[in-house]
Amino acid sequence: MSQIRHALSVKREDDFAQWYQEVISAADMAEESGVRGCMVIKPWGYGIWERIQRLLDDRIKAAGHDNAYFPIFIPLSNFEREAEHVEGFAKEMAVVTHHRLIADGEGGLVPDPEAKLEEPLVVRPTSETIIGDAMARWIQSWRDLPLKLNQWANVVRWEMRTRMFLRTSEFLWQEGHTAHADEAEAREHTLTMLEVYRACAEEDLAMPVIAGEKPAHERFPGAVETWSIEAMMQDGKALQAGTSHYLGTNFAHAAGIRYQDREGSQTWCHTTSWGVSTRMVGGVIMTHGDDDGLRVPPTIAPWQVVILPMLRDKPEDEALLDYCEQLRAALAAKSALGEPVRVLLDTKPGKAAAKRWDWVRKGAPVIVEVGGRDMENGVVSLLRRDRLWDAGTGKPAFETPTRDAAGEAIPEMLTDIQQALFAEAEERRNANIHRGIESFEALREFYESNTRYPGWVEVQWAKPEGAELDGVVEQLKSLKLTMRNVPIGAPAADGTCIFTGRPAVERIYVAKAY
Amino acid sequence: MSQIRHALSVKREDDFAQWYQEVISAADMAEESGVRGCMVIKPWGYGIWERIQRLLDDRIKAAGHDNAYFPIFIPLSNFEREAEHVEGFAKEMAVVTHHRLIADGEGGLVPDPEAKLEEPLVVRPTSETIIGDAMARWIQSWRDLPLKLNQWANVVRWEMRTRMFLRTSEFLWQEGHTAHADEAEAREHTLTMLEVYRACAEEDLAMPVIAGEKPAHERFPGAVETWSIEAMMQDGKALQAGTSHYLGTNFAHAAGIRYQDREGSQTWCHTTSWGVSTRMVGGVIMTHGDDDGLRVPPTIAPWQVVILPMLRDKPEDEALLDYCEQLRAALAAKSALGEPVRVLLDTKPGKAAAKRWDWVRKGAPVIVEVGGRDMENGVVSLLRRDRLWDAGTGKPAFETPTRDAAGEAIPEMLTDIQQALFAEAEERRNANIHRGIESFEALREFYESNTRYPGWVEVQWAKPEGAELDGVVEQLKSLKLTMRNVPIGAPAADGTCIFTGRPAVERIYVAKAY
Repeated sequence: MSQIRHALSVKREDDFAQWYQEVISAADMAEESGVRGCMVIKPWGYGIWERIQRLLDDRIKAAGHDNAYFPIFIPLSNFEREAEHVEGFAKEMAVVTHHRLIADGEGGLVPDPEAKLEEPLVVRPTSETIIGDAMARWIQSWRDLPLKLNQWANVVRWEMRTRMFLRTSEFLWQEGHTAHADEAEAREHTLTMLEVYRACAEEDLAMPVIAGEKPAHERFPGAVETWSIEAMMQDGKALQAGTSHYLGTNFAHAAGIRYQDREGSQTWCHTTSWGVSTRMVGGVIMTHGDDDGLRVPPTIAPWQVVILPMLRDKPEDEALLDYCEQLRAALAAKSALGEPVRVLLDTKPGKAAAKRWDWVRKGAPVIVEVGGRDMENGVVSLLRRDRLWDAGTGKPAFETPTRDAAGEAIPEMLTDIQQALFAEAEERRNANIHRGIESFEALREFYESNTRYPGWVEVQWAKPEGAELDGVVEQLKSLKLTMRNVPIGAPAADGTCIFTGRPAVERIYVAKAY
Repeated sequence: MSQIRHALSVKREDDFAQWYQEVISAADMAEESGVRGCMVIKPWGYGIWERIQRLLDDRIKAAGHDNAYFPIFIPLSNFEREAEHVEGFAKEMAVVTHHRLIADGEGGLVPDPEAKLEEPLVVRPTSETIIGDAMARWIQSWRDLPLKLNQWANVVRWEMRTRMFLRTSEFLWQEGHTAHADEAEAREHTLTMLEVYRACAEEDLAMPVIAGEKPAHERFPGAVETWSIEAMMQDGKALQAGTSHYLGTNFAHAAGIRYQDREGSQTWCHTTSWGVSTRMVGGVIMTHGDDDGLRVPPTIAPWQVVILPMLRDKPEDEALLDYCEQLRAALAAKSALGEPVRVLLDTKPGKAAAKRWDWVRKGAPVIVEVGGRDMENGVVSLLRRDRLWDAGTGKPAFETPTRDAAGEAIPEMLTDIQQALFAEAEERRNANIHRGIESFEALREFYESNTRYPGWVEVQWAKPEGAELDGVVEQLKSLKLTMRNVPIGAPAADGTCIFTGRPAVERIYVAKAY
């Protein structure tokens, strides 16, 4: 068996964090911007986000929401209101204090002291309060309910330690906010949106997730219930990829969101909020990337098929381009995964082998190389990115179907790749969820003896509260663990709480997490 | 002839500015946010922007651009660099000086003096400099060219006088930036994007525009050429709806954008930039709105057809809903203007007449009302928003086709409405462009005797420069006029310059403008 020479310099098993950075760079997805904590999202990374955005937007609209847009600036006083009633209030935010620059007389510019704002403005870390204010204005009677809004926007949270896509000072996200006449409808809607996120993650991103409820201490400040989808990365850590909150009437009270009911009484609305962000792109990398770079699930790949003609700057190029163009046109006229096939004929100058490896690192699902000899034989050389190597020879596993057969087969191949990536990730995830650990000591031993990529542990617990819960959180923290969620539909508890020794009331996942 | 009772309280001819505000409010498009100069874009307004965005994005991608995303914050030093070489440098910008809030000890919050930024950050008024920096990093050799980028983003310019959609401190836009190996290609691309804007304005927004070159004094600072599309609003004023700039090597020099050419020499790139914004929505309002509210061209209407069942909270409602749902499903399965018909069955509680007028004010292209009697007769009551009134009776001009005939006819009707709105606007625009004014005195008389909605005047001029040009600008300013553009393909000049009396070299439009 020959040695495979992988396209990246760092392997996942050697240094996962370093590998992650190398994928982002090698796949040309993003880079540091020079502006503290902010990244530049390059076309391939942004193209993946655009695909996620469009598919999720369709799902959000199908669930009856309208998009709207709210100001990027939030008056300071909104946060004072929030600071009063929310204990876990985060204060790391970008604050605008001036509205003009002037020359400092030494060739530089400074904020103009004459243009100091009376009330500083905060660059939105979320639009919760400003959308709450709007809801209070827009809702008068039961006829105005439910009010179901969504916003796609950039938000800023001043982060001290940043990692591209996972935690950046500026990031892109959607935030949904809904108001309902009663508790039952609002609770149901919270779960509807959780299901939208699950479907998006699993069907569009091919990223298996566990949908469930966060424990009380992991709730969004002010929420009555917080639900999440949690994905397992290839290093065994958990990534919270989306959250959906039932807020009771807490935010309605804070913002004054109420309505006149059918009987004429003023009644508080029940609200929900839910969001996902560019963090999802980090999840795609850490779920599907391999030692050759990214592998993009076909549903969210900006280009699903890339055709690379081996041009030689000679007159024969024209016939070769024509041969390739016919395949491109045939594929573009076909559908895969419910949409027209996205196929690129890449005629950019450059050596064919270098371009092949660029597209391997970017993770285009299907790469089709065509040289003069292929054309003579009426075939193409086809690489499936999810089955890149021939283990026997240690070389790329090219197939050589006829061009027309490739045109016929590729749409179905894309569906197959989408399913294969999901199946691979699900199998790995399931193999790394551990059960049967029945004491905190056993949990400690498990994580201390599996220091590399230990995965998640499902434990049973009695759901203690107050100081007892604080103690549990501290215990877990000593192992760098956190509680993830209680999966929907998990079997009932049947054992003993590993923290308290009392009878357990539910099963919950613990894991290291991003 | 009966008196028509229009749905708005202000008529265009009585107070155009007031009418504009009323349309925005009555069509539920946007509102003041309480944050200085920033608006909340409500679902109907944002839905129109989303339609424009998606259609324009398709056109931008088809022209070979990739979308990317750059940080919202720009370091102060970037502007110092720009301030050095750009004279018309605008300094009204939102400046971030702190990254944390702390309690002031009196229940309030203040910027934390400990968290003052070493270098203030500016909320992007444009991403010109930061994208220029990226281009300088990304371009090494001729193989990397052309580099064609686009960004959809929010930008902030501190405006003292704001008007919703037309001039707000925060607005949404796209900015395209491209780098080319040579001048010819960059100049050609500048015009390609101007044509993309013309097509979007005329075909998607049904808004006729004049595409042409701005005079030297109206150029974007630093540009070699600035081209624009100019639309005439119903008050006769011009709206610059999009611009495309050929920047020569000026910005390449400022940002260091160069490449190794085929011969191995370092060569400066030629760059372009171009953008349109939410201002376009203001153009749609002032082009198509009437005394009953907005009229949205079907191509950019979030809902093209709204079906209003006249529900009575009685058991018969079920049959009526079923009757309407069949029409909705039949229409949703059809295409109009190249896309599936966007049809809403509006079952929101409320009186049918009130809901009808809401949709009239919002400008849904086709409104279909269905009452019990309609159902009995197998018909529907249909209103075309572009032909709302029966002039004879002064009542809404309902047609009553059979339901099935309506289902067949509506797709074509949408195409017809799209064309009719364009034709109406084009006819009005053409009727309000005045020619044959051959002296500045005549120009003055024209505008002083047509104070209401005088339209544009095509004048011939000698294109003076320097102090002489400044004088011309001042002369026009005294009449509140500006030069708009020199239309592509305009007939050659054949007269005398109205400013200098010398032989004219070109024809140019002058107008009052937004």
